[in-house]
Amino acid sequence: MTKPRLRDLGIVIGDLPAGPHNAITDVPGIQVGHTTVVRDEPRVIRTGVTVIQPRGGTVRDQPVFAGYHAFNGCGEMTGMAFVEEFGWLSSPIALTDTTQVGLVHDALIQYAVERYGKGAHYLGVVGETWGGWLNDRNGFALTREDLFAAMDNAAAGPVAEGNVGGGTAMICYDFKGGIGTSSRLVELAGEAFTVGVLVQANHGERSQLRVDGVPVGRELTEKIVPLAFATPPTDAAEGAWSGPSQTSSIITVIATDAPLLPLQCKRVARRGVMGVARTGSVAHTGSGDLFLAFATGNDLRVEDEQPINLRALPDWSLDPLFDAVAEAVEEAILNALVAADDMTGFAGHRAPALPHDALQEVMARYRPARA
Amino acid sequence: MTKPRLRDLGIVIGDLPAGPHNAITDVPGIQVGHTTVVRDEPRVIRTGVTVIQPRGGTVRDQPVFAGYHAFNGCGEMTGMAFVEEFGWLSSPIALTDTTQVGLVHDALIQYAVERYGKGAHYLGVVGETWGGWLNDRNGFALTREDLFAAMDNAAAGPVAEGNVGGGTAMICYDFKGGIGTSSRLVELAGEAFTVGVLVQANHGERSQLRVDGVPVGRELTEKIVPLAFATPPTDAAEGAWSGPSQTSSIITVIATDAPLLPLQCKRVARRGVMGVARTGSVAHTGSGDLFLAFATGNDLRVEDEQPINLRALPDWSLDPLFDAVAEAVEEAILNALVAADDMTGFAGHRAPALPHDALQEVMARYRPARA
Amino acid sequence: MTKPRLRDLGIVIGDLPAGPHNAITDVPGIQVGHTTVVRDEPRVIRTGVTVIQPRGGTVRDQPVFAGYHAFNGCGEMTGMAFVEEFGWLSSPIALTDTTQVGLVHDALIQYAVERYGKGAHYLGVVGETWGGWLNDRNGFALTREDLFAAMDNAAAGPVAEGNVGGGTAMICYDFKGGIGTSSRLVELAGEAFTVGVLVQANHGERSQLRVDGVPVGRELTEKIVPLAFATPPTDAAEGAWSGPSQTSSIITVIATDAPLLPLQCKRVARRGVMGVARTGSVAHTGSGDLFLAFATGNDLRVEDEQPINLRALPDWSLDPLFDAVAEAVEEAILNALVAADDMTGFAGHRAPALPHDALQEVMARYRPARA
Amino acid sequence: MTKPRLRDLGIVIGDLPAGPHNAITDVPGIQVGHTTVVRDEPRVIRTGVTVIQPRGGTVRDQPVFAGYHAFNGCGEMTGMAFVEEFGWLSSPIALTDTTQVGLVHDALIQYAVERYGKGAHYLGVVGETWGGWLNDRNGFALTREDLFAAMDNAAAGPVAEGNVGGGTAMICYDFKGGIGTSSRLVELAGEAFTVGVLVQANHGERSQLRVDGVPVGRELTEKIVPLAFATPPTDAAEGAWSGPSQTSSIITVIATDAPLLPLQCKRVARRGVMGVARTGSVAHTGSGDLFLAFATGNDLRVEDEQPINLRALPDWSLDPLFDAVAEAVEEAILNALVAADDMTGFAGHRAPALPHDALQEVMARYRPARA
Repeated sequence: MTKPRLRDLGIVIGDLPAGPHNAITDVPGIQVGHTTVVRDEPRVIRTGVTVIQPRGGTVRDQPVFAGYHAFNGCGEMTGMAFVEEFGWLSSPIALTDTTQVGLVHDALIQYAVERYGKGAHYLGVVGETWGGWLNDRNGFALTREDLFAAMDNAAAGPVAEGNVGGGTAMICYDFKGGIGTSSRLVELAGEAFTVGVLVQANHGERSQLRVDGVPVGRELTEKIVPLAFATPPTDAAEGAWSGPSQTSSIITVIATDAPLLPLQCKRVARRGVMGVARTGSVAHTGSGDLFLAFATGNDLRVEDEQPINLRALPDWSLDPLFDAVAEAVEEAILNALVAADDMTGFAGHRAPALPHDALQEVMARYRPARA
Repeated sequence: MTKPRLRDLGIVIGDLPAGPHNAITDVPGIQVGHTTVVRDEPRVIRTGVTVIQPRGGTVRDQPVFAGYHAFNGCGEMTGMAFVEEFGWLSSPIALTDTTQVGLVHDALIQYAVERYGKGAHYLGVVGETWGGWLNDRNGFALTREDLFAAMDNAAAGPVAEGNVGGGTAMICYDFKGGIGTSSRLVELAGEAFTVGVLVQANHGERSQLRVDGVPVGRELTEKIVPLAFATPPTDAAEGAWSGPSQTSSIITVIATDAPLLPLQCKRVARRGVMGVARTGSVAHTGSGDLFLAFATGNDLRVEDEQPINLRALPDWSLDPLFDAVAEAVEEAILNALVAADDMTGFAGHRAPALPHDALQEVMARYRPARA
Repeated sequence: MTKPRLRDLGIVIGDLPAGPHNAITDVPGIQVGHTTVVRDEPRVIRTGVTVIQPRGGTVRDQPVFAGYHAFNGCGEMTGMAFVEEFGWLSSPIALTDTTQVGLVHDALIQYAVERYGKGAHYLGVVGETWGGWLNDRNGFALTREDLFAAMDNAAAGPVAEGNVGGGTAMICYDFKGGIGTSSRLVELAGEAFTVGVLVQANHGERSQLRVDGVPVGRELTEKIVPLAFATPPTDAAEGAWSGPSQTSSIITVIATDAPLLPLQCKRVARRGVMGVARTGSVAHTGSGDLFLAFATGNDLRVEDEQPINLRALPDWSLDPLFDAVAEAVEEAILNALVAADDMTGFAGHRAPALPHDALQEVMARYRPARA
Repeated sequence: MTKPRLRDLGIVIGDLPAGPHNAITDVPGIQVGHTTVVRDEPRVIRTGVTVIQPRGGTVRDQPVFAGYHAFNGCGEMTGMAFVEEFGWLSSPIALTDTTQVGLVHDALIQYAVERYGKGAHYLGVVGETWGGWLNDRNGFALTREDLFAAMDNAAAGPVAEGNVGGGTAMICYDFKGGIGTSSRLVELAGEAFTVGVLVQANHGERSQLRVDGVPVGRELTEKIVPLAFATPPTDAAEGAWSGPSQTSSIITVIATDAPLLPLQCKRVARRGVMGVARTGSVAHTGSGDLFLAFATGNDLRVEDEQPINLRALPDWSLDPLFDAVAEAVEEAILNALVAADDMTGFAGHRAPALPHDALQEVMARYRPARA
């Protein structure tokens, strides 16, 4: 974790303070685990899986209130029919490549059976973005052991970003993307809470990238930082599915320890769109822009049979939380870009990292002149 | 209230006990008021407004959790964007004719200003069904004073049904319809609660009417109970909007004192569809089938600035409530049919009441033979 | 296929004529395939998968317009974010057990790769119901070859019903349930169309079962037709997930050759609720009641790059289609019940078939007396 | 129309060309009309109504496909249940103050009766934002004649912006806001189309205002451009509803002549969020952020009884349209700010216009230095 993050480059997003790790794990109880699979033989594999545990390992029995927003439904996040209906979540959240959704879905159930001695995660949550430009989409390399490993290594503390886990093959604004995270501290109704964000960022077209409002994408054109492929794509016949940014998507997971009700979680999820928009995206047709928010501030039990006692924040107290979400989503995406390394993969395709010095140079030029 | 209701005809719907009034007002705090406007000069007017006060008159300050379901959106219920977003309601619910939605919407705001000395009900809830077959749709006869009167006369206790209030001109399964109500007592998670329903029933085609599963509509055909009009409709040019059952709709309001959360209210609202379906409807194209449910079992305040304490029922305890809703909606619709009287109105159109004796005769014939 | 179906017992649902096979395959181009896996060693397996091909094998390139309705979202149907967003479908529809959703999802992608030489079905449609009372939920017995086989044996013509494919372990109104199908012929805007339905029926509580309005479930109580298990459930610790009817669900797929637009498909999907309601269900908490409708009457291509020409039916012409859907869904569920055989499975659990003679006897008793 | 607009200040948003009027009326057939009511006696009135006619005056008979998105449902737009269900619109769109929604709703129906000799607009579309800081909310000053006048003066060509029509009393980012408009020309699937936007902008907090990414709101603080009121608010008792920006909202109407289907209109409506986000908003709790898009490129008739022929653009061709929407919404909001004049109103409240020179000065300081 000695890589610089966005803030280390002198670029600070928004006004609110970040938590100690500036990560989704700043929300107490949240754990993140990655498994990354990179190899060149027999097929060129660049894939992985990232797991978010909403309450350490106990979410199976002790759900969290949750809300979902599909801003652009060109993607998949399983388990959302349940979240929309009930407003709570009793599954870990796993993020992976499009072609491995099923494998991870089954592995989540098997994990529960093997680790707990009984089943669960039946309506598991698996989100995906399309890594098929750098990863051999027909490789199907991920295994259930990879999911088990991500579950087992899930931990609090700093979160690896960039080319890791489900973000391994991802491309964002035509730079190398992947996993990014951020957090904010807020005061709501007189109490202190944390909101954390984790994104699997695979969206956007170069020319639209904005960093804190600065049109970085217009400056760092493909002439300056080319997005290269060594050979013509081998699958031109697949039409709409073949370009690097045509199938871009972003999964955004938002966590907080505030005692939100389900519809409040949904409202929080929706604010994630603001953060994505601030980085320049307009959610193009092929971009599955899915947002899931959950709140750990109430103590639910799947086995509850008696009326339960809850706390909730008044709706009119939530604005700082919305501000925090917009800031943290924006920063999480930029952290993904800053953390990612150049990657060469399937069919010789190459995605360049966002060059830190060039980014800093552009930002400096747009720094306001003295009034 | 000496008119017979469905049960007085020996027809009992479902298994659960009804409340003392078998009405939405069995839920503590619920009040219902009607204003009915019937006159023949200078225009043939058959209209009115019905008001449901979710907490006596205090809902403006002390909202109720609420949920909405548009099963067939060929209709209007204002205020639902707010309910969908926030999951609570701080307005009375007013039901009226399609052409008077605006008048009632404004009158609700003015009522708050005049009665409370300050505004509210800004996003007021006004539902409508189309009474334009018996009521001169261009009469615009309702006044703000009519709405004020319905608000002022809102009361607990027995609820007038049939040709009253918003239901005045309504037609249901090609019989005279209108307002109907019913209630059920349920035990949820070991506690006793009441659920009450009020419908403005203007939906359905004769041949589809079912009563407790018996195909009453097939038996009581238009040959037996004709739906008559004295003169050809004067507005054939209006095409799709001119027939009696083509523009049929039903508004269903469901209330309970159970401590439900907003999404649970939405799930309850959705179960109203089951009750409508049991009476035979398939929700034809022109039928605005809108469902609103609210729950008074928590104490919210618009002015809340601190975290609030709530109670909630576990989701897995709600099945008896769903059963109750299906039963009560079915019975409320049938109560509207049983209470309504023959009506002759605009352009000589005539809608016949469902004849009680004929109904009883059909039901008796479908009574099971001894095994 | 010499088993009797509902009509063979003299029970006809509704007024509209059925197609030649009274099956979803009456809609031209629709194919259905099943793989059924039943064995007792080493684990007690009762599972399978059913596949619906919306246009023979060409839906990958030639999508169909589609619409989705989650009446009760306690279930999973993958691929629906895409359908909600775009209103079309380019995947086969696979139905299976809850624990095999992931396996089938991945297998759909692999099938496309292996059979077509290139990928697709990335956002594949896999629906589930819970078969864990008769099937060892921890068996994970299905293989990708099972899905391949169902795809390869998909065919037009008669459709096997009852304990087959995804329906193998399913229980419906506490009788043995499973796969059922039905169809109707309708005239819309002067043209003839077919609507077909296939259900995987695993929902409902005995006492609520209605057949053409007759309260069959109240008559055929568990005293008369017991739902037995040989040993106490082995997994009481799993709480909410352990009962036979507590986790009941129904997946309903509706197909038509009418040229519907996407929102019209959604409206058709919603009418499926009416058919379920007619069989008595109120969609209890644990019942995932998901509805998917698609229409083959327009010719779309994934590769379309130019404006395309479409036909559409006027909205006000669709009522006969809605009637047809309600009838066909009701009959498909009853066909599942009539076709299913007794099954003994996991932990000695036994689900009895609906006895045909008892059903006929009850229906005869509720036959109307002469007027 | 000699007032400068944003472009006249040298600030150009985005890359796509605007239409000849840079207004929603660049879409052929679109007409806009305003009635503005400003007076100080007997009450301080600052209100009005703005009407958008989607097809000159013929939308009543010749609907347009339409789609709706409620990003934050703290507001009202009547008629949306129908749009969500059917995907088309046969009503003009009227925008006004919150307290006049009902009046305008009724007046739309009466207008149809009086002007066409028969009814329509029964499910009329009326959107609102809250002008109660500058307008006496209890004045109820608007009349049905005001709506009739806006309908009668609706015209193609340049559109008045700022303190006009429904935007009269509105406040945006704590500057005087109101009506704004913009347009873009796009090529989709090889054909040329126009997209136009009109907003009633009443949203946002000063510190968040961005102009083309530049944090203008942070620079032009309330110290520099104060938002003043002469006397303490008279209605502190109304709590949440009393502040100028706490009840901020924005209604966004998007029109295009592209042949979009209903779901495509909904996707276009959703992209409006991107434009709002670019101006800095995070859609705070009290902000009703409602988006309505319609497309005139197909010829529908309410009276259609036969299957109709439609054209549609392939989904994968729509990205330039999404870009255009984001740009035009951003510019329409900024046009509202640039066009608005200082206004003093109810209770001596004063909202200052965005000062053009100060805006230009800030923008110049953030102009990039030479590389």
